Amino acid sequence: MDFKKSPLAPKSFPRMDPIPGVRLATANTGLRYKGRPDVLLVELEEGSVAAGVFTTSKTASGPVVWDRAALKQGEGRARGLVVNAGNANAFTGRLGEAAVRNTVAKASQALGCSAEEVFVSSTGTIGVPLDETKITGLLSKMRLKATDSGWAEAARAIMTTDTYPKGSTRTAEIDGVAVRINGIAKGSGMIAPDMATLLAYVFTDAAISPKALHKLLAEGTERSFNCITVDSDTSTSDTLMLFATGMAEHKPVRKASSHRLKDFKDKLNEVLLDLAHQVVRDGEGATKFVTVHVTGAENDRAAKRIGLSIANSPLVKTAIAGQDANWGRIVMAVGKAGEAADRDHMTVAMGGVVIAEKGQPAEGYDEAPVAAHMKGQEILIEVDVAVGRGKATVWTCDLTHAYIDINADYRT
Amino acid sequence: MDFKKSPLAPKSFPRMDPIPGVRLATANTGLRYKGRPDVLLVELEEGSVAAGVFTTSKTASGPVVWDRAALKQGEGRARGLVVNAGNANAFTGRLGEAAVRNTVAKASQALGCSAEEVFVSSTGTIGVPLDETKITGLLSKMRLKATDSGWAEAARAIMTTDTYPKGSTRTAEIDGVAVRINGIAKGSGMIAPDMATLLAYVFTDAAISPKALHKLLAEGTERSFNCITVDSDTSTSDTLMLFATGMAEHKPVRKASSHRLKDFKDKLNEVLLDLAHQVVRDGEGATKFVTVHVTGAENDRAAKRIGLSIANSPLVKTAIAGQDANWGRIVMAVGKAGEAADRDHMTVAMGGVVIAEKGQPAEGYDEAPVAAHMKGQEILIEVDVAVGRGKATVWTCDLTHAYIDINADYRT
Repeated sequence: MDFKKSPLAPKSFPRMDPIPGVRLATANTGLRYKGRPDVLLVELEEGSVAAGVFTTSKTASGPVVWDRAALKQGEGRARGLVVNAGNANAFTGRLGEAAVRNTVAKASQALGCSAEEVFVSSTGTIGVPLDETKITGLLSKMRLKATDSGWAEAARAIMTTDTYPKGSTRTAEIDGVAVRINGIAKGSGMIAPDMATLLAYVFTDAAISPKALHKLLAEGTERSFNCITVDSDTSTSDTLMLFATGMAEHKPVRKASSHRLKDFKDKLNEVLLDLAHQVVRDGEGATKFVTVHVTGAENDRAAKRIGLSIANSPLVKTAIAGQDANWGRIVMAVGKAGEAADRDHMTVAMGGVVIAEKGQPAEGYDEAPVAAHMKGQEILIEVDVAVGRGKATVWTCDLTHAYIDINADYRT
Repeated sequence: MDFKKSPLAPKSFPRMDPIPGVRLATANTGLRYKGRPDVLLVELEEGSVAAGVFTTSKTASGPVVWDRAALKQGEGRARGLVVNAGNANAFTGRLGEAAVRNTVAKASQALGCSAEEVFVSSTGTIGVPLDETKITGLLSKMRLKATDSGWAEAARAIMTTDTYPKGSTRTAEIDGVAVRINGIAKGSGMIAPDMATLLAYVFTDAAISPKALHKLLAEGTERSFNCITVDSDTSTSDTLMLFATGMAEHKPVRKASSHRLKDFKDKLNEVLLDLAHQVVRDGEGATKFVTVHVTGAENDRAAKRIGLSIANSPLVKTAIAGQDANWGRIVMAVGKAGEAADRDHMTVAMGGVVIAEKGQPAEGYDEAPVAAHMKGQEILIEVDVAVGRGKATVWTCDLTHAYIDINADYRT
């Protein structure tokens, strides 16, 4: 199936400069997609390190199980990454484990490193055994043609139902030295990361210890990928990894709390949020990008749960698709979240216009400006639940006919 | 909007005999619907009692707040019930509270009883103030024309987006005396009752104490209305009440645990389950009735959470709509439920055919019979998660284009 580019897509893929120590190559495996790259090999310079956060699914895929173990065993050392799209490697039992092992063995051979320095991801249909020889047969050739450019091609190679490649880039300063941060991501359905995320890879030439990297990544994820949802379904393969080659000419940073990382942290968080938003903007069938801002909750965690309850409600999402300012459904979604809310003092606004306050429709409420807002592509929902100071922002898209078209026969 | 009758609807409304002590009347308020009854008055003989379970929403509607308090204050005494459809009375603040108070006052006057013996429900659009005078002006006339028949008309009067009236009836024996149980219900969207339910009212002439009634109702709900979901959205107005006139000629029963209630309990549970299934069969846009049976979970509660995770997954529901046996999404939904599951020993079957076992596709799996099953209207999903003895069955429907059509512009 071919899908039209999301109307919410950014104008173009950002210009992304090389990162010292990172080389990329793509190819076509013939596994599912024809005439487009569907496998990515990333080679990292010796001395590179990595951190990762993964799906919390109880039926996590083979690659996720491997990556988690490898990060631990290799103490964060990283030399390579292999990602294929179109055929996941989830719920494939011993066959799937063998496919991971063989891919890692062949990749570490091609790269001249040890197995636990190689990370793998597979995305696509669950439950179809992965013929990894279609991938491993390409690795030596891919390594030879790997270059430090080609980020858009890399982002394209990991797409499934995505309608555009996703990338984000920033330059940060550490001790006055410029370091680069490049990230790519894929995802448009089965998106409700909760504790981890879809597939996203961020690269930098900064010299930061694996432990500090992990802390930065975990914190950044909490307010970016963990605050988005397309359809409330959490994947078995969600993976977000951050690789650092350490080739920038500043002294290594060991602690995430170091003030030297302030700018890096800001820029990293910008990249993570940008990528997360790009995933929502490519949400299956999306025609509206929706920001849900919750204040006045018992605490930030409660605010996020309320925000996700609104963002995941099929009734709220179909109303937005229909350009209907049906705020009663927002009240319903607040109520079902299970977190404290003061029904008789809460406030609901859409497009910056207060619609309801003190538990009833706002006095003199005029729906005209809100109706106009609903016709736009960027929808803003603000809710104050009037019990505390907790706040959170989450992002989602609308639920349209195209979501059903895409998912009613994904496998055919 | 007019919607075609659900393809899953029962052939006809069941023949329901009178219940001694219960009289019904319907009328049209002109509030939203034209040319059909949209308000129901039920008069109960002196000495009747009631029990109720209600939404767990933190933004519960005015009528729910009233009913809960009245049951407590009146110690379960019941003389009347007023239900209107098309205009809810939720998130309407002080105006809404006044509307409840006035309705109850006028109804208790018409019925010659005290306020806390009258129960009210309103269903329809949230956040629109309810002009209760359109209801109260009709009550005296309705009381005069109330009869002991007209159950189908009563079920019709409480419908909103429902495409058919829902009723169920059984006869049970207590001490060798035949007692009747009649139930009616409405609901087709915003259905994920969790701890309570949509709108459903069950009547009996049995003589059972309010405390015992409540226990029977709460237990029965747990395995019927609390095991269904249409769209994972929990309403602000969910209400399930059980009324007993006590006019049957057996000695009153005080304890829910009494062995004298065995047959009554069985038949009551049948009525509750029948009504719950009828709600799912009228799920907005439904074309398939889906039974999800989970075994091998840590405990029954875990099994139910896993079942609801499958039943609420938009990816599972759209695949079913597309008649696609995409069992990988079932594995995904098991994984995201957060309950223990042994990925490498679990089993998934559809239509009685084992598709996957021991963490991978079943040996020699032939999709043909499963594909044929998916074309039918009754879909069976069975999952064994291989960690314990917990089990549960939940019911849902598929997610189709019609759900979006119905909900994208519900208010217009």
